[in-house]
Amino acid sequence: MTRVKIDTSRFKSDFDSLATIGATNDGGVHRPALGPDHLKARQWFTQRAQRDGLTVNVDSAGNHSAVLLFPEAEKALLLGSHLDSVPYGGKYDGALGVVAALEVLSAIKASGRSLGVNLEAVDFTDEEGTLVGALGSEAMAGELTPERLCNLRCSREEFVEALKRGDLKEESLFQARRNPDTLAGYLELHIEQGPWLHDNRIDIGVVTSIVGSRSFRISFNGRPDHAGTTPMTNRADAGLGACAFNLALNDIVVKQFHDCVATVGGMEFKPGAFNIIPGQASLCLEFRSRDKDSLEKLKAGVINLANDVARHRGLDVSLEEVAVWDPVHMSPDIQRIINTSASNLGLSTASIASAAGHDAQSFAPIIPTGMIFIPSIGGISHSPQEFSKWRDCVNGAKVLLNATLAAAESLRG
Amino acid sequence: MTRVKIDTSRFKSDFDSLATIGATNDGGVHRPALGPDHLKARQWFTQRAQRDGLTVNVDSAGNHSAVLLFPEAEKALLLGSHLDSVPYGGKYDGALGVVAALEVLSAIKASGRSLGVNLEAVDFTDEEGTLVGALGSEAMAGELTPERLCNLRCSREEFVEALKRGDLKEESLFQARRNPDTLAGYLELHIEQGPWLHDNRIDIGVVTSIVGSRSFRISFNGRPDHAGTTPMTNRADAGLGACAFNLALNDIVVKQFHDCVATVGGMEFKPGAFNIIPGQASLCLEFRSRDKDSLEKLKAGVINLANDVARHRGLDVSLEEVAVWDPVHMSPDIQRIINTSASNLGLSTASIASAAGHDAQSFAPIIPTGMIFIPSIGGISHSPQEFSKWRDCVNGAKVLLNATLAAAESLRG
Repeated sequence: MTRVKIDTSRFKSDFDSLATIGATNDGGVHRPALGPDHLKARQWFTQRAQRDGLTVNVDSAGNHSAVLLFPEAEKALLLGSHLDSVPYGGKYDGALGVVAALEVLSAIKASGRSLGVNLEAVDFTDEEGTLVGALGSEAMAGELTPERLCNLRCSREEFVEALKRGDLKEESLFQARRNPDTLAGYLELHIEQGPWLHDNRIDIGVVTSIVGSRSFRISFNGRPDHAGTTPMTNRADAGLGACAFNLALNDIVVKQFHDCVATVGGMEFKPGAFNIIPGQASLCLEFRSRDKDSLEKLKAGVINLANDVARHRGLDVSLEEVAVWDPVHMSPDIQRIINTSASNLGLSTASIASAAGHDAQSFAPIIPTGMIFIPSIGGISHSPQEFSKWRDCVNGAKVLLNATLAAAESLRG
Repeated sequence: MTRVKIDTSRFKSDFDSLATIGATNDGGVHRPALGPDHLKARQWFTQRAQRDGLTVNVDSAGNHSAVLLFPEAEKALLLGSHLDSVPYGGKYDGALGVVAALEVLSAIKASGRSLGVNLEAVDFTDEEGTLVGALGSEAMAGELTPERLCNLRCSREEFVEALKRGDLKEESLFQARRNPDTLAGYLELHIEQGPWLHDNRIDIGVVTSIVGSRSFRISFNGRPDHAGTTPMTNRADAGLGACAFNLALNDIVVKQFHDCVATVGGMEFKPGAFNIIPGQASLCLEFRSRDKDSLEKLKAGVINLANDVARHRGLDVSLEEVAVWDPVHMSPDIQRIINTSASNLGLSTASIASAAGHDAQSFAPIIPTGMIFIPSIGGISHSPQEFSKWRDCVNGAKVLLNATLAAAESLRG
């Protein structure tokens, strides 16, 4: 049988060429979902796939699939990740998994080998949540609900504009659902985005589970008075409420919720002028845990705290839950396959839980799903300083290739 | 001699018609300086002035003057205020003073009376500080400096765009300076913007001084890491720094600076996503006092606090002072004239210090300057809920008229 091999120079040149799209001066990329540079990255995806003779399908949620079909195959094994980025993020998050998936398909096609499952390298829409979060993978997995589209991470106007730019229709997003019986499994290569693998000198992380998360938009409402004429003791300053909430929540999580992380990532005061006391202060809160019970307990804590702060400061408060992701577990069979594939390449492995969300979490409840992590230097991610050694990226692609070949054997219909 | 009288129905109809420009659903107005609706308000000003036969001059800082000249007069007595508003502000702040000034000129012109000073009803550019703050009055008084234009309250791009919309050139702003020898004095009618006159059932406030203020833009800088994978104890969260600063400063001012007020009116986290720890958090701070020493002491406290918070949380911090206004005093002669004018009308008066800044502060250091306050219900201002009784507005216009006639006698060159 022909030996199948990653073409490391093709892989490198593809990765570098993608990283120029939406590149920022500091070495990162800015490709929010369905923004101009994300759409350019998708054009790049199509041209890259067609260059090596792969067919490209785009579904009604905008997911781009490069497809490699085999005569004896019925089901599809998905190799996915995403080309969108957080605002001013890094060039590895998502992009590495998509470029590696394309490379795996090109390598297998070039080898002439025939598999028992069809292969798809997929770029999912809006993994990072500029709009909804894991929008494309949830749509394909059949987990997207109309309710999710009522709780956007952006304004409705921005959502409508983004869909228009991506040539998508809101009501058609749900039609991207694929029958799980037609899907053999899901594999994803990703950077760890934490420091653990690098600190422990492990080459490959075999993901066991993905954390769950809850996201809230919280608004404190006071009175927008004149900043000069209103006495300090006669104010309803919404900004002070939002700040007090942020500090107190951080304290509570550090002291009482050791298996959770919580972040206020955005804050806005309105009207937002030097000389007006903020009448409204809204913030974006996200918290995560591997443990569903902890998530529920922390959610109750968040609601209590927001109400306490508001009452104490004479403000009103409103909470809107904008995303709910429960923790999910990776398939033990796929974990074994990834572990063996890495070991056969002489790479060290360790089991690891993912503290970040991924498109894999959309598929884990319905088909055999697994993830491969490579080390992130310093654990920095969602930042232009995000960095992984190229050697580790190549290791990841090799493990993805071998795991794909092994999973194709094990998962054929 | 013909009796000169405010035409109360003309005054009301002018006030109401102006209030429709940039009107918001909640009864306020949104007319940031040189924005579309502010420019519409200036068109209204020109048409209103010309309707009653007043000439309109526009200087190189965009200040609009309706002019009434007299054969024997040499100097000009300015009756000013502003048509711009804070974002989503009220319809009395600034507008009342301009409409009343126009009414005073129309009333005097209609009476046929000749004065010893020329009169100008002036709408000054950008009193509220969308761009710079008191830009037009400082330019006319010769107090605008190039340094002020380096410390904008908006981005440089927004400033350039705004000047372009207003048909103004940055380098020509300084040419709006008027020789103080050609100016007889300055009078301004304004709402109090505080609760004191109304709470004490006083009809007319005779302003003794205007508070000084300092404005800073403060940025805390940390590290924009992944909100899921970065442990709570290994973060440099700039947002927590900005929040801690806001709360601690509020505490310090309430406890230690009884003659000051301080407000964080704006706050922004960057990159500003649910799933990224804020790498940068910037805030807009303003503080005011009647006492220059208190301002300097509080400024030192602000700098210390910002550095303490940054050090304590492993952040960097930068402070940029964007405006410096020292406290100023009104002319004792003009205070006497206002007091007598009000008393002659049977109105109760009281001396009052202004806790808000006004265009009058630009002229107080160079020419005899005075301000007339009328009550603000509940002291609410810079808000759509800003409200003054119409009877008080009419009282204010009558006092402005009589004070103008008296000042014209007293100040003729």
